[in-house]
Amino acid sequence: MIKKQLRELKEIVYMANMELYDRGLVIHTFGNVSGIDRDQGIIAIKPSGVDYSELSPENIVLVTLDGEIVESELNPSTDTPTHIELYRAFPEIGGVVHTHSRYATSWAQANKTVPCFGTTHADYFFGEIPCTRLLTEEEIRENYEANTGKLIAETFRENSIDYGKMRAVLVGGHGPFTWGKDPEEAVFLSSVLEEVSYTAYMSLLINPELQPIPRFLLEKHYLRKHGVHAYYGQRRKRRHKQNPN
Amino acid sequence: MIKKQLRELKEIVYMANMELYDRGLVIHTFGNVSGIDRDQGIIAIKPSGVDYSELSPENIVLVTLDGEIVESELNPSTDTPTHIELYRAFPEIGGVVHTHSRYATSWAQANKTVPCFGTTHADYFFGEIPCTRLLTEEEIRENYEANTGKLIAETFRENSIDYGKMRAVLVGGHGPFTWGKDPEEAVFLSSVLEEVSYTAYMSLLINPELQPIPRFLLEKHYLRKHGVHAYYGQRRKRRHKQNPN
Amino acid sequence: MIKKQLRELKEIVYMANMELYDRGLVIHTFGNVSGIDRDQGIIAIKPSGVDYSELSPENIVLVTLDGEIVESELNPSTDTPTHIELYRAFPEIGGVVHTHSRYATSWAQANKTVPCFGTTHADYFFGEIPCTRLLTEEEIRENYEANTGKLIAETFRENSIDYGKMRAVLVGGHGPFTWGKDPEEAVFLSSVLEEVSYTAYMSLLINPELQPIPRFLLEKHYLRKHGVHAYYGQRRKRRHKQNPN
Amino acid sequence: MIKKQLRELKEIVYMANMELYDRGLVIHTFGNVSGIDRDQGIIAIKPSGVDYSELSPENIVLVTLDGEIVESELNPSTDTPTHIELYRAFPEIGGVVHTHSRYATSWAQANKTVPCFGTTHADYFFGEIPCTRLLTEEEIRENYEANTGKLIAETFRENSIDYGKMRAVLVGGHGPFTWGKDPEEAVFLSSVLEEVSYTAYMSLLINPELQPIPRFLLEKHYLRKHGVHAYYGQRRKRRHKQNPN
Repeated sequence: MIKKQLRELKEIVYMANMELYDRGLVIHTFGNVSGIDRDQGIIAIKPSGVDYSELSPENIVLVTLDGEIVESELNPSTDTPTHIELYRAFPEIGGVVHTHSRYATSWAQANKTVPCFGTTHADYFFGEIPCTRLLTEEEIRENYEANTGKLIAETFRENSIDYGKMRAVLVGGHGPFTWGKDPEEAVFLSSVLEEVSYTAYMSLLINPELQPIPRFLLEKHYLRKHGVHAYYGQRRKRRHKQNPN
Repeated sequence: MIKKQLRELKEIVYMANMELYDRGLVIHTFGNVSGIDRDQGIIAIKPSGVDYSELSPENIVLVTLDGEIVESELNPSTDTPTHIELYRAFPEIGGVVHTHSRYATSWAQANKTVPCFGTTHADYFFGEIPCTRLLTEEEIRENYEANTGKLIAETFRENSIDYGKMRAVLVGGHGPFTWGKDPEEAVFLSSVLEEVSYTAYMSLLINPELQPIPRFLLEKHYLRKHGVHAYYGQRRKRRHKQNPN
Repeated sequence: MIKKQLRELKEIVYMANMELYDRGLVIHTFGNVSGIDRDQGIIAIKPSGVDYSELSPENIVLVTLDGEIVESELNPSTDTPTHIELYRAFPEIGGVVHTHSRYATSWAQANKTVPCFGTTHADYFFGEIPCTRLLTEEEIRENYEANTGKLIAETFRENSIDYGKMRAVLVGGHGPFTWGKDPEEAVFLSSVLEEVSYTAYMSLLINPELQPIPRFLLEKHYLRKHGVHAYYGQRRKRRHKQNPN
Repeated sequence: MIKKQLRELKEIVYMANMELYDRGLVIHTFGNVSGIDRDQGIIAIKPSGVDYSELSPENIVLVTLDGEIVESELNPSTDTPTHIELYRAFPEIGGVVHTHSRYATSWAQANKTVPCFGTTHADYFFGEIPCTRLLTEEEIRENYEANTGKLIAETFRENSIDYGKMRAVLVGGHGPFTWGKDPEEAVFLSSVLEEVSYTAYMSLLINPELQPIPRFLLEKHYLRKHGVHAYYGQRRKRRHKQNPN
């Protein structure tokens, strides 16, 4: 029973990694997706440096929340300690994605938050996408990857950002992380973040004086899709295809 | 007979939605196409939040001009009230498209009209693409989607813009809408708007002092393709393939 | 015999139009290729407004150098008078291409020549790509398309530009034309122009003070590929695949 | 035995050239890959001006380190003398790539080094990507291609750059060269260089005041993947698929 759940998790994490690749959000091996089984405290994650063409559900690596490898001959992604810190700091998330996707990475490298300039952004991210400070020399020397995760958590804590409403972050000088209730949602948000990053850039070049959209427009769009008063999609009625009567 | 027309309308609207997706003008579910049967006062529109991979002529939703759903188990697009307002304000249009396409959306987010910098633009849009003001807090709180449509109509009315010659608009902080005599034409114009938005941006970055093309060049190109003196295409002679003698 | 040559010309022009489309240099019907049979004074050109999906060697239109249609039920491209003027002004060319390709069009709309910033440019275009002035109101009102061709010829004459070494031009506020010894070469140069237009733009944004490459580097690269001292490719030795011994 | 090694080298060089094309790093014939057999002092390189569609392992040209053609009816790439100079100056490299890829070429044309703005860059290139000065008129007139290679070597020597840690260069006003332990690695680095060039450009436009990442972050990332303390990928454990026990 427990084994079955982990097999399913590996399958889900495999599918999410492939989706990330197929959507053009990673080239070569520049990205990874993980998912967690909260009951067992086990994370499934892409192996380090393995080409997407060689990926399979079988070579997805299982690790504990302490970073111990569970029955695998492959190393997990070098970013695993970052994923672990995020699962620890954000107890309700079920999947994490890291990419070096072109547009979000450009904002991260610029050390700039992505302002909320429009409703596409507001539909999925409640406010500007935060960008962490650079890590200090000491933080980089020791436990670099774990400290990256801790820095993300610190950024959310110190700026009172709700990780449930802001499911993306840029690590300054590095690139984006996204998360969601499962790996699939985290991949979806990586894809939206990329689109939002491009249009914010282009809007800013067209209008260098541009200000973010007003709070009430942000709230309207975000809450139209999220929370108890959401009315986007088929949630309030029957689910599409599931109840055909 | 009436049923047959509505079935055909659903098929046409389905095809137009798929064309929008295939041309890369939408990712995920970020867009929708509708068409209207003016005789019956019935609009066919994409269901809300349904993936393009699951779309079919059958799950296109029919609604009345009052927004009442006609025989469907799915919710129509949340943008339906905007479409309805456009069909009401612009009595001769037969199809409406809304997207968050990358380049047009960037101009909308920048709260800038797209100047007419060249003949590609002039061939299809008679002057600068208008951009609405932002909606007020009150307009957003109540009937947001309907007010979006009303704001578009107001923008055209107050600036004396002819919706027959300017079949596109940017909603400030949001994205573009286009329309035409049928859904197919509206999709075509969305595609041209996207191209025009990119080249206007690039032209402006190359030459920040750039002014729109002169009125007489605009008129020449627009009227070469539209109106009684048009001479582009095969209209003035026999239609291609229809009369092979 | 003469008929056979014209049938071959239509085939060549058809192939070149499809190549233009397949390379992404046109969307919808925004472009056209022509070729000429100099002996017979007959031009083969794309029909006006016909989709690339419906194009065939058979529906390519033949016109004389006076613009008379030779045995066709379709109108030729509305740009035909421009092509005719180019064939008249530039007696050694065999093919002409017009597009609204994204990057070259952006420079044309910006009313700017494309400076020669690098060797990719110098390999194919001997100096900056010229950009014509805008046509006057009078030139647009009467014989607009023919006057576009005359303006191109005027631009080359007045600036002493050799049409054999500069096989591209931007029409201000409009878009690019290219030409070559045959339609295929003209399409090839349209493709190179597009690449050169993008990199010139990006180079300029990276370094706004940028100056063109020195004359001696321009000459080295252009003459490495063109003229009696060319040594690029397989010309000086046996032709690839043609003489396998 | 020796013949067999050269046949394998031609196959490897052919594959690397096709990979370059398939990744979109070259259009038309704008690029070439070579590889070297150090024992025999023989270089295998793409023939000049041959389309990728006609390329095969058989028509890859073999030349000596003195530039003498070994049993081939085709001319080698005109850039062969540049490749030869690089193999001479950098004795441990096994493959060289030259492209006119869009983004790296734009930086080269801008005569600017690509600053290291992020960890994607730091993962593969130890510091800013150098850009050579322009060649002098004299250097261009005589032995232009060999002098290009000598200029690269001079740039590395005079700036004390280690060609083992900086496996890419921009030739001012021209385009990029990359190298590696074999042709495949050189192609991989061309692809990463292209990505890094784009994001550096976009980061700079978002934040014109942007400074390179600190030295300790550069070192952390570069050394995480290279050298004796590397811990990225599967190197420290068993190799993926090679030792399945």
